[in-house]
Amino acid sequence: MPRPALIIGSVAIDRVATPFAQSDNILGGAASYAAIASSYFTKTRMVGVVGADFPAAFRARYRKHGIDLAGLQTDPDPAGKTFYWSGKYREHFAGRDTLEIQLNVFEKFSPILPPAYRDTPFVMLGNIQPSLQNHVLDQLVKSPKPFVLADTFDLWINLARPELDRLLKRIDLFVINEEESLLLTGERNPVLAGRLIRKMGPPIVVIKKGGHGSLLFHPDGYFAISAYPVTKFVDPTGAGDSYAGAMIGYLASVNRTDFAALKKAVAYATAVSSLTVESFSVNRLSSAGRRRIDARYKELVKITRF
Amino acid sequence: MPRPALIIGSVAIDRVATPFAQSDNILGGAASYAAIASSYFTKTRMVGVVGADFPAAFRARYRKHGIDLAGLQTDPDPAGKTFYWSGKYREHFAGRDTLEIQLNVFEKFSPILPPAYRDTPFVMLGNIQPSLQNHVLDQLVKSPKPFVLADTFDLWINLARPELDRLLKRIDLFVINEEESLLLTGERNPVLAGRLIRKMGPPIVVIKKGGHGSLLFHPDGYFAISAYPVTKFVDPTGAGDSYAGAMIGYLASVNRTDFAALKKAVAYATAVSSLTVESFSVNRLSSAGRRRIDARYKELVKITRF
Repeated sequence: MPRPALIIGSVAIDRVATPFAQSDNILGGAASYAAIASSYFTKTRMVGVVGADFPAAFRARYRKHGIDLAGLQTDPDPAGKTFYWSGKYREHFAGRDTLEIQLNVFEKFSPILPPAYRDTPFVMLGNIQPSLQNHVLDQLVKSPKPFVLADTFDLWINLARPELDRLLKRIDLFVINEEESLLLTGERNPVLAGRLIRKMGPPIVVIKKGGHGSLLFHPDGYFAISAYPVTKFVDPTGAGDSYAGAMIGYLASVNRTDFAALKKAVAYATAVSSLTVESFSVNRLSSAGRRRIDARYKELVKITRF
Repeated sequence: MPRPALIIGSVAIDRVATPFAQSDNILGGAASYAAIASSYFTKTRMVGVVGADFPAAFRARYRKHGIDLAGLQTDPDPAGKTFYWSGKYREHFAGRDTLEIQLNVFEKFSPILPPAYRDTPFVMLGNIQPSLQNHVLDQLVKSPKPFVLADTFDLWINLARPELDRLLKRIDLFVINEEESLLLTGERNPVLAGRLIRKMGPPIVVIKKGGHGSLLFHPDGYFAISAYPVTKFVDPTGAGDSYAGAMIGYLASVNRTDFAALKKAVAYATAVSSLTVESFSVNRLSSAGRRRIDARYKELVKITRF
């Protein structure tokens, strides 16, 4: 019996430059990528904030995916503008630099869950300040305890470590990339880093290695998946968000969190994020359709089995 | 019906320093690692050259593995010394520097196959000058055509490209690491690099990504395997040689080169090389035993299946 999933995170208008192309005024933000990814698997609720300038076309994009927008706050300030981020990827996509940030309405964002969202059984805390992630947890029903996935990034590991440490003790699944796992643990071997992160709190940990696949650490065992062989790489923005969104959406759709379900969630996340990187913004992710996701999932089974 | 395998390559006495430890006067060379790895799967013949100083204990090590040493030439010069290599790995194993090379008897080495070796059906051309690799091919029987695996490294890609290009058109399987695949093709995406290398000649290509697993390109399809989760990483020297040796040994043991057999060969190679890196020299590789290799192979099946 499928359950709904709840996504909390940033909603942004992005300008992205890669070594090959650039795109401006495009839909971005962790919640956008994650909610669309999750929507392929289950009924998805979204909490975020936008300004009065937020384009109707972007809202229509969410609606196309059937995303429940009761939690998408529009800031009451009629001159309020949506969070704006401009970034540029370095040559060979070796890191990226933020060129401009306008926090705008996101600056004083405090996620408030509509009462009907508080008992959502599968929750993803997208990459926002750990204090806000903790604040969301405080609003969830205590019983039955929801299954909570959290994401983060290097800034919070460096600047908000105590709040992040507190968060790690309260969540079920932590999804992090390889560089962040090194920053968090000081351990370069991702197999050892994953074990160390589990000791910090979350019983389940996923370490993403981009084009090298990902690793799953679960109380019942270890699992490693190769990357989907992407050959038309356009823009990595949102790959991690859609990865996490696909995981929470899949888990909610099967209403399971055992090892076998987590492996499948990681495989679906691999398939979904491989689509995200094939375009700017959510374009490819949104147009792909469930059938193409399932085809990539099957392809992953095929290319990894021996 | 198992067939024998033939390994051609360097035999060396090494001094290796890692960021954590060092070891001197240890058995090294591509042929040593590859032949021991291959010996776990099938009867293995070895062609190389040593000096009069080559320790009896090292020869005994080959014999312990039942390696046929009829092709291991001892240089007639009574003062001839074995090839000596001293290298140091940089911090975090980010590359290595050669501190000293004494080519010694290896300088004028020209591999001569004993007549009984010339119809060996599975041949590995370890990392030596491409001109010598071509010279070995000239000595093999033309019919039935043997299955030939070749390895190389960055020096030959930079310095002996025409001979390497000629070699690539004559072999069946080329095994290369990710950095070398970039150097050879100019393509950073290993999925595209693998396809480009196949166009240079070898119908089957393997790109090794170290701790990130490896990719197989075969006329019948693409296959990707995650790395074995090594947690006691000591010294990567010989990992690639034992990987290739395990591949040729396994393929000879099943006398098959179809896609299914190649996938299994890659998985065995992954298991074997994960043992090699757990010690200096061939120590762990040699002491592991077939049972431990099979256990790691089974573990690889388990941690990659979903």
